[in-house]
Amino acid sequence: MHIELINTGSELLLGRVLNTHQQWICRQLADRGYEVARQICVADDGASIQAAVRESLGRADLVLTTGGLGPTSDDITRDLIAQLLGRPLALDEAVLANIKERFSRIKRPMPRSTEVQAMVPAGARVLPNAHGTAPGLAMQIDPNPFRENKRASWLILLPGPPRELRPMFSESVLPLVLKEFPPPPFVCRTLHTTGMGESAVEEKIAGSLRPLLAAGLELGYCARIGEVDVRLVARGEKAAATVSQAEEIIRQVLGPLIFATDDATLESTVVQLLAGQKKTVALAESCTGGLIAHRITNVPGASAVLMCGLVTYSNEAKKNLLGVREETLAEHGAVSAAVARQMAEGARSRYAADYGLAVTGIAGPGGGSTAKPVGTVFIALAAEQGTTVEERFYPFDRETFKFVTSQQALDLLRRALAD
Amino acid sequence: MHIELINTGSELLLGRVLNTHQQWICRQLADRGYEVARQICVADDGASIQAAVRESLGRADLVLTTGGLGPTSDDITRDLIAQLLGRPLALDEAVLANIKERFSRIKRPMPRSTEVQAMVPAGARVLPNAHGTAPGLAMQIDPNPFRENKRASWLILLPGPPRELRPMFSESVLPLVLKEFPPPPFVCRTLHTTGMGESAVEEKIAGSLRPLLAAGLELGYCARIGEVDVRLVARGEKAAATVSQAEEIIRQVLGPLIFATDDATLESTVVQLLAGQKKTVALAESCTGGLIAHRITNVPGASAVLMCGLVTYSNEAKKNLLGVREETLAEHGAVSAAVARQMAEGARSRYAADYGLAVTGIAGPGGGSTAKPVGTVFIALAAEQGTTVEERFYPFDRETFKFVTSQQALDLLRRALAD
Repeated sequence: MHIELINTGSELLLGRVLNTHQQWICRQLADRGYEVARQICVADDGASIQAAVRESLGRADLVLTTGGLGPTSDDITRDLIAQLLGRPLALDEAVLANIKERFSRIKRPMPRSTEVQAMVPAGARVLPNAHGTAPGLAMQIDPNPFRENKRASWLILLPGPPRELRPMFSESVLPLVLKEFPPPPFVCRTLHTTGMGESAVEEKIAGSLRPLLAAGLELGYCARIGEVDVRLVARGEKAAATVSQAEEIIRQVLGPLIFATDDATLESTVVQLLAGQKKTVALAESCTGGLIAHRITNVPGASAVLMCGLVTYSNEAKKNLLGVREETLAEHGAVSAAVARQMAEGARSRYAADYGLAVTGIAGPGGGSTAKPVGTVFIALAAEQGTTVEERFYPFDRETFKFVTSQQALDLLRRALAD
Repeated sequence: MHIELINTGSELLLGRVLNTHQQWICRQLADRGYEVARQICVADDGASIQAAVRESLGRADLVLTTGGLGPTSDDITRDLIAQLLGRPLALDEAVLANIKERFSRIKRPMPRSTEVQAMVPAGARVLPNAHGTAPGLAMQIDPNPFRENKRASWLILLPGPPRELRPMFSESVLPLVLKEFPPPPFVCRTLHTTGMGESAVEEKIAGSLRPLLAAGLELGYCARIGEVDVRLVARGEKAAATVSQAEEIIRQVLGPLIFATDDATLESTVVQLLAGQKKTVALAESCTGGLIAHRITNVPGASAVLMCGLVTYSNEAKKNLLGVREETLAEHGAVSAAVARQMAEGARSRYAADYGLAVTGIAGPGGGSTAKPVGTVFIALAAEQGTTVEERFYPFDRETFKFVTSQQALDLLRRALAD
């Protein structure tokens, strides 16, 4: 089954907004075993929209469009599609009544321009809009004049605002798609790893997966900052078994490098492990400047496990808030294993936490030296059993440096908790 | 000039990641007067990539692709493009030396599979990658066999990771595009505002800009979380004068709502103002969990102005680290104007800063009550002249709540500094 998604909107092509529709719709479909073959974004002008829809109808069994159904002059999708398909528009009284009712409910007069939203192409199915005035439209084009073999296609037009599109998609579009195109059995699983680059991960696992790949397993990699995702997909009767087998093999090879699956994140994993073991952590951040605390507190329930987070850039703060010793700072410098250790131990003991996690490093662009260049960082974890200090070198831009360091620090805590 | 952008990556079509490249690249081009006519996203399979590139080359003067240049087996763009164009791939020794040097610098062995990244199609210009191993590739296709009129096109292939793509785009691609396709006189200026919604901003300024709009000024709005951007564009000889006049008019109307222009951010503005006035700030964050400290420390030079940042979720931490009084907590609760005030004043006096900035609120999803529902937040700024406390209500999801609160807190400090 071939699916294409067309997003209309000049604001997308001017880079003013992120195309969240693409991710959301693709994800909704992928989670049910449908793959979008192509996504296209065109501006709000007649020729571009018509051309894109015509081309997609020439290839696809299902074409979805977003945007361009509103009342303003640049919302012209409905007209152009009707023209392209040679289907006259007619006023749909039920839709009009709905729109009027909506305006009377919010006690505003209905602008005349809104009436156009009740115009429906002949033969189109109206998809109700519970959160706005423009309904969606679905039509089966049979025969489809744009395909060489004239095979039928479905064309579904959706409004642009996410709070209108999303419920409409869930309530009307998905049921229609599931009915018209019953999906094959499909399983998708993503393993999140950290601590190894993309090619090293592939080198490690590709060999042992060869038999499963030959049997239809699909394997994909996605390298993010400080993280490589391995995606396992299988289809058909044996999909679940194939993906399970593949996961088992990968877990044997990568073991503790895998920190989460599917929608879980490193920070949600850490919070979950801490909460499950009724443990707490206190943070002492120098170069990450609060990012570790920010990531942990993005997870609902973080308040139960985070005793406190201290952003201690200055030596004064390191001494006063964490008890780092003057002599240690003088002898080793603020960016050193000895100071990282005292920060972690100070955070743990002063704030009565089970774990003290500390980072001190040089984020740049300034502040580096020959002995300690920009990118040098020490990460320390103090626990009941003792303190671990790791030295790392991340010669990246400031924000990447902060993120990779936070990733490594969170992973150090995760590994301690997983032991 | 017709530009098309092709993003490759199954993770995009599976809805695993947001297509941030589209926004970023389109924005970079739009800010210099170029408009992308179409953006296409296809999966990492040979047939799809080849078809998309062939079609785009049939229409466009400039085709940009992202992704598919890495070392793993689903990174196949380089091969397919070489095939499509009939240009043999050859090993580029300089590129290989660079990749090897990169691995030796981070003290990791180079996996054999990485060598493929040094394969360059005949006649292609190599775009250096300062932050990764896969170089970009630029080639002029002249004559272009895919266009009816055979007119030349440029094809530019970029790596997928944003931290590799972005600097490469700025350092190599933009200069190439500006040289090969000199843009018409074009001026673009973005004014960042906070504290007022999109339609209110429009209502305030649209009237006084009418004469300039009639004379060719283009005006755009972009509503983000906690921020509305006003974008001014003019073309032709008088572009600079038109945009300046428009900016002056808007500044008269919106005044202090404008916190930055173009690429400056609220946090960079705050750090710059603090540094310029040789002032310092200490942060006490409850519900934002370190996000304010994180945003401030994203700005190079933040260490000169940030005394310390404290993430004080628990009452214990509020008492011990900030001197919030037991009675105040008991009487008013942790989320209250009185506690916010004591947090800000405690941060300022205990850590010897010129300003103490504090937030306490209910991020949700749990923790709300009828009197103080999820979304309630108090923001306090302590200064020499006294303490200001603001109450706000942001009933959003957790991450949005944190961001909007950090935005409001930073803006409170900015306005104090701008006075």
